[in-house]
Amino acid sequence: MHATQKPTAKLLYAQSGGVTAVINATAAAVIETCRKHKITVYAARNGILGALREDLIDTAKETPAAIRALKHTPGGAFGSCRVKLKSLEDDRAKYERLIEVFRAHEIRWFLYNGGNDSADTALKLSQLGKTMGYDILCIGVPKTVDNDLAITDCCPGFGSVAKYTAVSLRECALDVVSMMDTSTKVFVMEVMGRHAGWIAASAGLAGTGRNDAPHIILFPELEFDEERFLARVRETVERVGCCVVAASEGIRDANGKFVADAHAGSDAFGHTQLGGVAPALAGMVRDKLQLKTHWAMPDYLQRSARHIASKTDLDQALAVGKAAVELALAGENAVMPVIKRVSDSPYRWRIETAGLDQIANREKKLPRSFITKDGYGITATARQYLSPLIHGEAPPPYGKDGLPKYIALKNASVRKKLPPLREP
Amino acid sequence: MHATQKPTAKLLYAQSGGVTAVINATAAAVIETCRKHKITVYAARNGILGALREDLIDTAKETPAAIRALKHTPGGAFGSCRVKLKSLEDDRAKYERLIEVFRAHEIRWFLYNGGNDSADTALKLSQLGKTMGYDILCIGVPKTVDNDLAITDCCPGFGSVAKYTAVSLRECALDVVSMMDTSTKVFVMEVMGRHAGWIAASAGLAGTGRNDAPHIILFPELEFDEERFLARVRETVERVGCCVVAASEGIRDANGKFVADAHAGSDAFGHTQLGGVAPALAGMVRDKLQLKTHWAMPDYLQRSARHIASKTDLDQALAVGKAAVELALAGENAVMPVIKRVSDSPYRWRIETAGLDQIANREKKLPRSFITKDGYGITATARQYLSPLIHGEAPPPYGKDGLPKYIALKNASVRKKLPPLREP
Repeated sequence: MHATQKPTAKLLYAQSGGVTAVINATAAAVIETCRKHKITVYAARNGILGALREDLIDTAKETPAAIRALKHTPGGAFGSCRVKLKSLEDDRAKYERLIEVFRAHEIRWFLYNGGNDSADTALKLSQLGKTMGYDILCIGVPKTVDNDLAITDCCPGFGSVAKYTAVSLRECALDVVSMMDTSTKVFVMEVMGRHAGWIAASAGLAGTGRNDAPHIILFPELEFDEERFLARVRETVERVGCCVVAASEGIRDANGKFVADAHAGSDAFGHTQLGGVAPALAGMVRDKLQLKTHWAMPDYLQRSARHIASKTDLDQALAVGKAAVELALAGENAVMPVIKRVSDSPYRWRIETAGLDQIANREKKLPRSFITKDGYGITATARQYLSPLIHGEAPPPYGKDGLPKYIALKNASVRKKLPPLREP
Repeated sequence: MHATQKPTAKLLYAQSGGVTAVINATAAAVIETCRKHKITVYAARNGILGALREDLIDTAKETPAAIRALKHTPGGAFGSCRVKLKSLEDDRAKYERLIEVFRAHEIRWFLYNGGNDSADTALKLSQLGKTMGYDILCIGVPKTVDNDLAITDCCPGFGSVAKYTAVSLRECALDVVSMMDTSTKVFVMEVMGRHAGWIAASAGLAGTGRNDAPHIILFPELEFDEERFLARVRETVERVGCCVVAASEGIRDANGKFVADAHAGSDAFGHTQLGGVAPALAGMVRDKLQLKTHWAMPDYLQRSARHIASKTDLDQALAVGKAAVELALAGENAVMPVIKRVSDSPYRWRIETAGLDQIANREKKLPRSFITKDGYGITATARQYLSPLIHGEAPPPYGKDGLPKYIALKNASVRKKLPPLREP
């Protein structure tokens, strides 16, 4: 395919959905691989929106050093968005606009770096060629802290959140144990993962013994039972002296209601009460068990914590970027490079190729076999799967000022050739 | 003094108050220095309570490798507590009990590792010799993430929280900027420091330019004005596209009411609503400005984050431990080794000695000159002071499992010689 393209043909790269600690590493690998093949890479500013708005970034303006620095810079260097295109029929105007933009800039390859929603958009874009007469190859590139993509063994972005979560939980558990005699008895740490408990499970790596934290993990895959939870908290405090809980933001009660929303609403003054699983659980423990509680909600800190990234995760983020370009240049369409686990110990993996139709809109939940029978911990099977994903450290370089040297790109705009998009 | 003590004389070390990422480094320095001088170190289990309960730990049972590992292990390895002794008159029974315990175990030196409350207890204990006829020397050892001790230029424990805060804020700001076009516009990160804004100020190190995050810092030293705050948030979002806020947990409104408590209370079901500055501010922004918000509350994660400790902080934590032992062995009483800044750039410091009476119960607030005129940022003077404290990295060793190798000591108990304490 590459041979048949004109030398002016370009590759467009876009980031999609929530960003991660290593999505920019994937971007760096995409750009570096293209540079080797003398292909110009444009990046869409703010994800697919940039493509619709013809708001494109010319990555050729960035120095090799700047691109290398992307490998250790969190966030999304070109901007991202959560915009899902509907079907070709329902969103025809948008698809036509995309083709207009692609044609105006001779974009022949489109790499879309995201999760399962993005895989769906990528799949639809890959069909543009056939249905709308424009020759575009579309490759999905996996990325999501939620680790919920089908087919691939794991998702770049997840290993680093998993490492952040396990390390942070191990650290704050040491803090809690130090003071439990006279201070906090129950500590709740809320983690991301509204639908799938992969991040919650990774908290389990923080400890190995029966009395090690986390003493309770709450998974969104299982129904939250307040009475049973409180009984387990009480029993743990009696046995261990404290109870450290890792809770997924997505846990729901028997009625399917999110625990995070249970206490949200308006107070007497009409102010919005924001939800949150951690404060809800901590309040519950304080009310019903009269135990001193503390809680933490790292929120975006967990997915942007490049300073504690997993080396394995970084390597995989780089590998999928490189593989995606190679697939594109080999003329593949509607595919995604995925991670295939070859062995657990020693951990070995390689890149394989999967069809986007196998990945789009599917959600890989945590298998029940990864959760202990009582529903509050992870099994040996889960550890075998999770552990390699947090192996290795890959700290960013630090400046003399004691801060990581994160790069801000120039992000020079490509000159527009079309009239502006009329946004609704 | 050392020369006059019997070879069976022992030093008792106790940790006090909230623990930090580097308090165990101080403990390691205390024990290693004593070992050089052939002095046995007992540690009080759970701080001063261990001394009252005659619950002592024989650190001689720990290997040199275990003591070395303390230098990279967060939390309080011997346990800590928040117990403040009253005056010698009001708490006479407790002081008498302490003397009984000291006498029974030939404890001649007491090192109390804590903040300003602990300095007060240490000061009172130092007077035991004179008023109660037992020869005990008492040395305070500085430790507090709040950085609010008088006399000393800074407090071991603070530099590491400051580094955690600045790094985390820089990272999550990159995340927010990536998505601000279509997602979160306002992000609030809550930091510790109920009475003094040192940690809040350290968030300011995350950025240097006018448009860099944090765009707003809220200090407990200044009155929180909702209207003015919201106006600044709106203006920042219009100018920058997003607004990242670092807020001290201790901010209060014109009536002196904690913002964190403003939204706390009970919901319609009688459940406790836990407070929090970050959710309160985020709710305010959402209600009044209709902007999408996210918030984070790292809580204990920030003070236990040994993985991102400051090398400067670690060095100072070690230095005060060593100096405290040397002061004790030199026969000093009622003093604390403190950090004296010699120069800002290059940063140089040395250990000096201060009287505990200069430190006990005093609170060093952030000077107004460290806060910009508008009240929402830090000045060049503040940067000059804060920056060196986060210089240098001192990561813990990691295992093959990808987790820091934190040590759990044996904490073998010293055989009790006295009848148990009758606790109320």
